[in-house]
Amino acid sequence: MKVAIIGGTGYGAVELIRLLHNHPYVTVEAIISHSQSGTDLASVYPHTVDVVDMTMDALDITSLSEKVDLVFFATPSNVSKDLIPSFLENGVKCIDLSGDFRLKEPEAYKKWYQSTPADQEYINQAIYGLSEIYEDEIKNASLIANPGCYPTATLLGLIPALKHNLVSKEQIIIDAKTGVSGAGRGLSLNVHFSEMHENLKAYKLGEHKHIPEIEQVLTNESGQEMQVVFTPHIVPMTRGIMSTMYTNLIIEKSTKEIVEVYQDFYKNHPFVRVRPEGVIPSTKEVYGSNYCDIGIYADQRTGKLMIVSVIDNLVKGASGQAIQNMNLLAGWEATTGLNQIPIYP
Amino acid sequence: MKVAIIGGTGYGAVELIRLLHNHPYVTVEAIISHSQSGTDLASVYPHTVDVVDMTMDALDITSLSEKVDLVFFATPSNVSKDLIPSFLENGVKCIDLSGDFRLKEPEAYKKWYQSTPADQEYINQAIYGLSEIYEDEIKNASLIANPGCYPTATLLGLIPALKHNLVSKEQIIIDAKTGVSGAGRGLSLNVHFSEMHENLKAYKLGEHKHIPEIEQVLTNESGQEMQVVFTPHIVPMTRGIMSTMYTNLIIEKSTKEIVEVYQDFYKNHPFVRVRPEGVIPSTKEVYGSNYCDIGIYADQRTGKLMIVSVIDNLVKGASGQAIQNMNLLAGWEATTGLNQIPIYP
Amino acid sequence: MKVAIIGGTGYGAVELIRLLHNHPYVTVEAIISHSQSGTDLASVYPHTVDVVDMTMDALDITSLSEKVDLVFFATPSNVSKDLIPSFLENGVKCIDLSGDFRLKEPEAYKKWYQSTPADQEYINQAIYGLSEIYEDEIKNASLIANPGCYPTATLLGLIPALKHNLVSKEQIIIDAKTGVSGAGRGLSLNVHFSEMHENLKAYKLGEHKHIPEIEQVLTNESGQEMQVVFTPHIVPMTRGIMSTMYTNLIIEKSTKEIVEVYQDFYKNHPFVRVRPEGVIPSTKEVYGSNYCDIGIYADQRTGKLMIVSVIDNLVKGASGQAIQNMNLLAGWEATTGLNQIPIYP
Amino acid sequence: MKVAIIGGTGYGAVELIRLLHNHPYVTVEAIISHSQSGTDLASVYPHTVDVVDMTMDALDITSLSEKVDLVFFATPSNVSKDLIPSFLENGVKCIDLSGDFRLKEPEAYKKWYQSTPADQEYINQAIYGLSEIYEDEIKNASLIANPGCYPTATLLGLIPALKHNLVSKEQIIIDAKTGVSGAGRGLSLNVHFSEMHENLKAYKLGEHKHIPEIEQVLTNESGQEMQVVFTPHIVPMTRGIMSTMYTNLIIEKSTKEIVEVYQDFYKNHPFVRVRPEGVIPSTKEVYGSNYCDIGIYADQRTGKLMIVSVIDNLVKGASGQAIQNMNLLAGWEATTGLNQIPIYP
Repeated sequence: MKVAIIGGTGYGAVELIRLLHNHPYVTVEAIISHSQSGTDLASVYPHTVDVVDMTMDALDITSLSEKVDLVFFATPSNVSKDLIPSFLENGVKCIDLSGDFRLKEPEAYKKWYQSTPADQEYINQAIYGLSEIYEDEIKNASLIANPGCYPTATLLGLIPALKHNLVSKEQIIIDAKTGVSGAGRGLSLNVHFSEMHENLKAYKLGEHKHIPEIEQVLTNESGQEMQVVFTPHIVPMTRGIMSTMYTNLIIEKSTKEIVEVYQDFYKNHPFVRVRPEGVIPSTKEVYGSNYCDIGIYADQRTGKLMIVSVIDNLVKGASGQAIQNMNLLAGWEATTGLNQIPIYP
Repeated sequence: MKVAIIGGTGYGAVELIRLLHNHPYVTVEAIISHSQSGTDLASVYPHTVDVVDMTMDALDITSLSEKVDLVFFATPSNVSKDLIPSFLENGVKCIDLSGDFRLKEPEAYKKWYQSTPADQEYINQAIYGLSEIYEDEIKNASLIANPGCYPTATLLGLIPALKHNLVSKEQIIIDAKTGVSGAGRGLSLNVHFSEMHENLKAYKLGEHKHIPEIEQVLTNESGQEMQVVFTPHIVPMTRGIMSTMYTNLIIEKSTKEIVEVYQDFYKNHPFVRVRPEGVIPSTKEVYGSNYCDIGIYADQRTGKLMIVSVIDNLVKGASGQAIQNMNLLAGWEATTGLNQIPIYP
Repeated sequence: MKVAIIGGTGYGAVELIRLLHNHPYVTVEAIISHSQSGTDLASVYPHTVDVVDMTMDALDITSLSEKVDLVFFATPSNVSKDLIPSFLENGVKCIDLSGDFRLKEPEAYKKWYQSTPADQEYINQAIYGLSEIYEDEIKNASLIANPGCYPTATLLGLIPALKHNLVSKEQIIIDAKTGVSGAGRGLSLNVHFSEMHENLKAYKLGEHKHIPEIEQVLTNESGQEMQVVFTPHIVPMTRGIMSTMYTNLIIEKSTKEIVEVYQDFYKNHPFVRVRPEGVIPSTKEVYGSNYCDIGIYADQRTGKLMIVSVIDNLVKGASGQAIQNMNLLAGWEATTGLNQIPIYP
Repeated sequence: MKVAIIGGTGYGAVELIRLLHNHPYVTVEAIISHSQSGTDLASVYPHTVDVVDMTMDALDITSLSEKVDLVFFATPSNVSKDLIPSFLENGVKCIDLSGDFRLKEPEAYKKWYQSTPADQEYINQAIYGLSEIYEDEIKNASLIANPGCYPTATLLGLIPALKHNLVSKEQIIIDAKTGVSGAGRGLSLNVHFSEMHENLKAYKLGEHKHIPEIEQVLTNESGQEMQVVFTPHIVPMTRGIMSTMYTNLIIEKSTKEIVEVYQDFYKNHPFVRVRPEGVIPSTKEVYGSNYCDIGIYADQRTGKLMIVSVIDNLVKGASGQAIQNMNLLAGWEATTGLNQIPIYP
């Protein structure tokens, strides 16, 4: 399969390049960058020197459509929505790592993204690419809206409990923490080394774009309008997301029993590893890999079910899951090219 | 005033030494270490070389009682409970940084500390040293149970909302994050650099000793039996605690109005800085200082009041508050010797 | 004494503010910022909120000269050289933390700073503020060129060996390492958190502006034209400089004997702590303090004398030494207001 | 090929497991651990859970020799020397990541390792596994002494200059910096997170075991007894080594010309990437990969040639090079299973 990557100077693109380098069935035909066309990738990302010998190109939809079967969009919000329709019309499949096609309600997009949504026809057509949950739909998709990093960790943690009616649909609290690479490569005082090192910040309380995305999926899955409280934090490390979730147990089950429910739920999904009773995963245990690891604690004293879900934000939270989705729609094993042990320590 | 520090090789002790070095009215007469008696402080903590010229001593209660007016216990759990009664009988005041005298109910101590509690007479006599809240009691105390690091950040954040009936006493969730120095100087794979760097961990879900401490104080302050959900996390930085708290608003008030309630509540307490609407403090903004900074967000969409409270775990969360308490019982300004700007960046 | 700080938004300025906050004889009357005049300091540096209640001003030399006795310039290169003459003419003393008045040879400034040097009259008048070495000259100065961070650590490490003819004046290698705050608050991909964390870089090989500064002072002190090899590196931490120096021993002396020479050399200088044989200081042992700690190793096998010198780049390497120099010219103890134990851990 | 790994709980072993997981021709048949036999690997290294389903075994040389073709020793010093002879007699090839078979002179081993050397017969037989330099010998080896981490970075940087007579064999200074994982998984206050974070240390001045290893190889390669000055430092990051080398140029060549010499020297060795003039590699640019990247600067002013060489200490500095050597002796491409792009950021 021949693919192109649009948005070549961001961390999403460079992580796609890293992961696709060892994919047995895929070649990267073009890396597109608006701001750096004509530049060698290795001059922007010196770690690829002598390994990836590619020059970034400007975008020409027609010629690119002839060269490739699939395009990854690793672009900021508000870019892909204007480009994807043309690719789809040319018969090129699209996997969009940005948020442009995730929200089904145009009003929600306007409110949370403060911008004009994509054409509703394409929004309707887009499949939400949470691989383990929408595997069947993804296999037949032309346009995949790849999930956000926080929603991936959060939804994989919450959905089994909701589908099995273990917990109330009300009063769900999500306290999320991300490494700094989630903020991208754009310069900002917030993620200036001297300001962020030895520091911990909460941000965008009640205002993060991933809130409507999480609520939309939970509403679909639970069959009932759902609202969550979600607070993101930024932690002084480069990679990793942890979502700590607080829900109200509505059934009498021990931690052990709930672990079994989760393990059964994900038994055919090798990238989700549900840990045994007494073990809570840490972010480093998935570093550089496509795993989502989940720990469970049923607190009998307070009647709460706590779920801790960790991913590498750039892999399962972005580029890895995008490749997993590509594998699914190409009819390959989900793990093709992604079968790496986390890098530790 | 002449003081001694017991537990000389831990981070609590060395932080007391740092802060007392510039205190105008206090001299440290002795540093006591069981394991390192006879050793120079500077050989255990080379950063003190040529500045603090002291040798650590073994403990001799009688002679020490003659030399000093007050003793700080910077010892692990289960040490001070056997030593403090003798000092009190000798007329020496005691400030205990460990948890031995914090819990009023012996059953709670047995359950959470899994050990025999201190003599009830002395537990009854101990004043809980949350300086801003129990200022009057502290002024007349002989024995102060200095609060834990997490309870300090958490309680200063929650008490104004509870005292002003802004939030429900039910369903309070506390998601807390600490820097690694909270784990002390004892070696463990958990805090081995290569295991902890670029890592984020949740730990002791539902089992942390600070849970009963928080609940006891909230119960006292609210006049109603209270239970909280509290989950600690460890973040790859040395200093800092952030407590992110989720409560249910039971009154119609905006963020701005609640900020005003908080600012009024702490108006005579210079170490608590309540930030204006729209500003959430980060841990680095209190680094090395005795401040507790609080940010408020009233989420009208979900009816939640979120409170973010940050401290330096070794200062306001331990040694700084201990000195603040010493100031209060000595009749000095609370800020004496503690009036430092946080170190930034 | 009344002082002003020019360059209010940089790390040098905010560190001056932190350190002067507890100085017994000095008040900061004005903080000048070109880019942020009219802004509260606390909105640019939230850690100062409720402690430093000052608004930054635009520069008006005349009115400022009436208000203050001394001005600190915490400005980038090429700013102070045009402003300082006016202040001096108004009788205001100046301490310049930038490099504008350090190099005596205008040609050297042109070459290494690639810019027009200051007026030679003022360059001639400027005293190089390496406090321990030029104490007498500093006491009578009107204009002090505060040393660079690397030269401070390096020169305090090399001068005793050169003055005592222990080492050759040839073949001196200086391998220097700095924390990231040395790069200032200006945004750059180089010091973007995700690029710098878990990273180590060598930079400006053979081209760093501190090379001629080091060579000028060594030439003066040794009475012979000297040239050094100096390579700076940037380390993933915020504060701290280590200078590892390699020199050729020209005398038969053991490590212990050379340590004694150094201890004797600095015996009246409390901010330089020479460690005993077998102990090499690490950067954290001077964190947040004005100390320069020095370790010595005479390698009999290779005939080399290795000298390791550490400072906090923002304190002894910038603002702390500037205050030390102010103390000297005001006739106070060098340690006034600077007598703090390093913050550890 | 069937292999076993001895020393299963250390970072060397777990990195071998990670890298071999995607090797097309190798299966790991056994992981041997003295201290943890009978334990699942995943309980010691949770990041391998559900991926590597292996239990660690006690060592039984006879049965292991029947099962495997090759053994990796990822053990501390002083272990492999007593075990390897039996394996060799059983016809099993051995790659030793420890230092037991690196030094040819028994006196040198006694002096620097302070222990009894291995049997001289086997020392003589051992091939020093610096893959790019001793490729031919490695292909026919039965016992490979895998190089130390510092020597790998250092020797790959120095050898081309020496072989081409660009630099003097005298007065070579090596200032080396390592990430903390080089210290292994054993607990020590030195690498306790709170002590090592925001810290930079020089250690073992003049006494590091890698000094005689570097000198032995340089002596062989240059045909002249050589001595070097080598100072290691520990930097607050997990992975990465940088060796900054200072040599005296004895030929008139520009940086550009010397870069060409280096690029030519390594033109058939894909794991050594020589950077163009003006570019110095940083450690993160090789993170998680088997690359050794080299930057060159010829300082005409001082007559020095500076060489900066970076590797990932756990990959090219240990387990990656061990696999590269296995590839060579098995007759496969050197890059088999190692062809990964560094993980960035």
